[in-house]
Amino acid sequence: MRESVSIDAIEGESFTFGSAGVWQERVTAKQAAAEAAIPPGWRLSAATLAGIKLSPNSTTDLTKTDILRKCGILSERELGLTEKYNARQLLWKMAAGEVTSSEVTLAFSKRAAVAQQLLSCLTETLFPEAQARAAFLDDYLKKHSKVFGPLHGLPISLKDSFDIAGVQSTLGYVSFLGRPIPTVNAALVDVLLGLGAILYVKTNIPQTLMTADSENIIFGRTLNPKNLGLTAGGSSGGEGALIAFRGSILGVGTDIAGSIRIPSSCCGVYGFKPTTNRIPYGGQTSPALSGMPGIVPSAGPLATNIGDLELFVKSIIDAKPWVRDSSVDAVPWFELPPPAVPSYTTKFLTIGVLEEDPELPLHPPVKRALAKAVAALTAAGHTLIPVHQSRSTSTSSGWLQAFKLFSLDPTNTSIQHILDGGEPMINTVKIGQDRARAEGPTKEFSLLELAAMNVERAKYREAWRELWNEHSLDVLIGPSAQHTAPKHDTHGMPGYTVIWNLLDYPACIIPYSTASMELDPDPNGYPSTCPPPAYDPKAFDGAPCAIQVVAPRFQDEQCLFASRIIDDVLNG
Amino acid sequence: MRESVSIDAIEGESFTFGSAGVWQERVTAKQAAAEAAIPPGWRLSAATLAGIKLSPNSTTDLTKTDILRKCGILSERELGLTEKYNARQLLWKMAAGEVTSSEVTLAFSKRAAVAQQLLSCLTETLFPEAQARAAFLDDYLKKHSKVFGPLHGLPISLKDSFDIAGVQSTLGYVSFLGRPIPTVNAALVDVLLGLGAILYVKTNIPQTLMTADSENIIFGRTLNPKNLGLTAGGSSGGEGALIAFRGSILGVGTDIAGSIRIPSSCCGVYGFKPTTNRIPYGGQTSPALSGMPGIVPSAGPLATNIGDLELFVKSIIDAKPWVRDSSVDAVPWFELPPPAVPSYTTKFLTIGVLEEDPELPLHPPVKRALAKAVAALTAAGHTLIPVHQSRSTSTSSGWLQAFKLFSLDPTNTSIQHILDGGEPMINTVKIGQDRARAEGPTKEFSLLELAAMNVERAKYREAWRELWNEHSLDVLIGPSAQHTAPKHDTHGMPGYTVIWNLLDYPACIIPYSTASMELDPDPNGYPSTCPPPAYDPKAFDGAPCAIQVVAPRFQDEQCLFASRIIDDVLNG
Repeated sequence: MRESVSIDAIEGESFTFGSAGVWQERVTAKQAAAEAAIPPGWRLSAATLAGIKLSPNSTTDLTKTDILRKCGILSERELGLTEKYNARQLLWKMAAGEVTSSEVTLAFSKRAAVAQQLLSCLTETLFPEAQARAAFLDDYLKKHSKVFGPLHGLPISLKDSFDIAGVQSTLGYVSFLGRPIPTVNAALVDVLLGLGAILYVKTNIPQTLMTADSENIIFGRTLNPKNLGLTAGGSSGGEGALIAFRGSILGVGTDIAGSIRIPSSCCGVYGFKPTTNRIPYGGQTSPALSGMPGIVPSAGPLATNIGDLELFVKSIIDAKPWVRDSSVDAVPWFELPPPAVPSYTTKFLTIGVLEEDPELPLHPPVKRALAKAVAALTAAGHTLIPVHQSRSTSTSSGWLQAFKLFSLDPTNTSIQHILDGGEPMINTVKIGQDRARAEGPTKEFSLLELAAMNVERAKYREAWRELWNEHSLDVLIGPSAQHTAPKHDTHGMPGYTVIWNLLDYPACIIPYSTASMELDPDPNGYPSTCPPPAYDPKAFDGAPCAIQVVAPRFQDEQCLFASRIIDDVLNG
Repeated sequence: MRESVSIDAIEGESFTFGSAGVWQERVTAKQAAAEAAIPPGWRLSAATLAGIKLSPNSTTDLTKTDILRKCGILSERELGLTEKYNARQLLWKMAAGEVTSSEVTLAFSKRAAVAQQLLSCLTETLFPEAQARAAFLDDYLKKHSKVFGPLHGLPISLKDSFDIAGVQSTLGYVSFLGRPIPTVNAALVDVLLGLGAILYVKTNIPQTLMTADSENIIFGRTLNPKNLGLTAGGSSGGEGALIAFRGSILGVGTDIAGSIRIPSSCCGVYGFKPTTNRIPYGGQTSPALSGMPGIVPSAGPLATNIGDLELFVKSIIDAKPWVRDSSVDAVPWFELPPPAVPSYTTKFLTIGVLEEDPELPLHPPVKRALAKAVAALTAAGHTLIPVHQSRSTSTSSGWLQAFKLFSLDPTNTSIQHILDGGEPMINTVKIGQDRARAEGPTKEFSLLELAAMNVERAKYREAWRELWNEHSLDVLIGPSAQHTAPKHDTHGMPGYTVIWNLLDYPACIIPYSTASMELDPDPNGYPSTCPPPAYDPKAFDGAPCAIQVVAPRFQDEQCLFASRIIDDVLNG
């Protein structure tokens, strides 16, 4: 399966291998073990596969095919469990005894296994362990007549970086295959287990975690179920693809430049990047050098709706995760007016609308989605205010700052891990390395240069505070990227996501509208002087568009609250 | 006045001056202007002064003399206003119309002016501005029959570093005398004014802000009103001395290694260092290089009781200071059970007791105060648990980490400001510089070394989290320093305060017990192998002791809540 979606399928290149024999053997063994972990009854038949053009050059929307119904792996009831409900509804049904966790877990395990065979969206699978835990939880509910915790019995998918005791965390690096298997859970894993969740799969990521194409030498390239010819995004690309395929109802990614929001947008699902240090990040395997200053990543959820994002964040914070992870800020969850009260949908917001940065121009479908959202929100009674970015608050200048902060490590640790394994670089990493090489030798920054960057960043934050105050905003909406999911290996600079990491503002992705050849016909709408990807109406036709909702630092509750109001207008 | 308490009085040294004529003229002019700002009627007569030995070699406890009653500057009613009430009581009286803000402000202005003549605790005075604002607030109350804000009419003192538009922020540096006068208020100043507070004085600090003796070339050396022969502490030493003399009822300091807590302890007042970024820090004049990584300072209150510390922190946070300062975390104040409910004093706490670090041994009176507190708290029904520090959590290893983090700036900016002014170094800065020089040339740290320090710090935080969980602590008590206020220029390393900066744990100082020649007679109780200051029973007799109460990061509410329970037992 993986071979058909490997980089060679796109590029047709041959790589310069380090010590080819060694790394290839290791990779083949790991791939064989991963495939063997999928029960025979959950495997797609050759006949089924023959019916789909499973290639990064295809434009198939797998979510519109009948492959899942035809293959017979999931029963009708299992298909319903994975398709008809959101996470909260599943939790209610399990708590009420209408369905067991064993059934729900089995359904999502099967569907994730199918997704893996089509999309290469998984790394590790824990199907038997998940079934055993589901049985324990079902038993617990029966015995105690109460749920184990607020996430009782719910299968949750995790980005590969989260350590689970007894499970490899390779990040797709060949060199990490030789590392000892983690013996300690990441803090978030312990919190989730304490809440009654079930862990059943870890999801795919890009080599280095610093590209928007979730491809690596061990686990291959994750495809986008909405259009196999477009990227699934990254670095939490396995999550995006799996949730869009409904192989998971709730998943966890991490985001330092857009790694939750890019795959959410590309695959048409909801995603939330919280303020840093609210959701436990500790205990992950990282490709980066520990202790380096700069931008701090967040962990956060991807889901099929806003309510489930909120469920995740609130449940985790209510569990006082700071007791398990000293990097978490002991800041409780603030209850805002509950969603059930009638005033909820009649609350009128003051919503800023981020202007397009001329240096990071928007593709026509992205522009149209934003304009359509503005019109709909205005019609619903909200106040929409165009927010002009000056030089001191611009997206492109924020991106430049972030890019410098990502270049601080003089030892290039995440690249070194590639070299250590003898494995080839994936295409997008290679492109980045070639670009860096063209710019001259790696610059080694001093502490004084770091201090200057910190000052620049503090100024940017102050300028944004003033801009926010100037318009008395509740929240701000804007694009999630210059474009929808582009063709593989062509994702642009993540300016529209990374500025919210630089500012540490919480940000929520709401899928809204789709690219349309008919409505966005003009490829020349996108200036040719701009960096790739160029807009291609035919190739992007049908790709999901998205709106990004942001609130100031630590206003995660407000961001999610307003996102729900906005989502009710746009998708309600 | 200042001459009599200058460094020469202690050391009798002559300094190597840069360009003596120039700096001396500037300093003399500034000193003359400062003295001229004290109204003639508020000046102590030569006769009054002749009755006090105003020297750092004296052992006078000014708070026990009748100088304030004899000098006749404050009326009986004014003395009462400054002595009989805490800040909350004054606020109630002003809100009820029992006393005007003009009266209260005048009383504290006079008392601060007297304090200044005895203790050199002030830098800038704003007496006429304060009277004008008090008149405005009195008028406001009369007109609107409601207070301007929760701090209506209350005079509050500020450490010199807080910028006030139109007022110099020199930090006592000669080179800063030539800087433009600030035109913008520090964020905290705006917040305080918005709450109805009155600013009337800025308070003295040490050259560089990085020593525990609040002395500089412009404003002289702050003396400790409890014992002129002992240090007032630093760097918020002017605050400590002024509040101990009741020339202020509530003041604001800053703390990166103990700069609120050291003067609180030395002068026998209450002080609170919050978690960083909860109280606005922005808009201060700093001696340090902007943007340098490392330990982040906090702003926080000093007062005569815990309730007023809480009043300050809660009022500031309730004012949403993050709207004015992007460095503030938008984390609301959490209401814990209110102090008035009967259960308040019957809540039993699990209190850790920090063991003495053998490398930072405690002077006999400090040990005795802690043991006495443990006995009293145990008798009151609380659970006291000795907390043994391993190597990975020890105070001395924390101090070593912090010291490295304080040495990151390769340009030695705070020293450069001294050289720029041509002024001499104060004694304690000189001692530090000599020590550094003896250790060899200034080390320039790389980003990789910084990363290693960050990793070490993260490990320290994790080890402390585990230690805290191991004992299921509510709070922890310990010493505030190895010693009480020592003789001038001999304060030891601030290990017992700085570890809570390194960990970013909120910490509260409760004055408790005093050193006693009789009860702590043995100077040999302090190992001679240890760093100075040596314990001298006679010199330290009567010096205030203190207990430090700490809680984990972001648990400021809990720290203050528990501190009040503890204070009720110890001083109630």
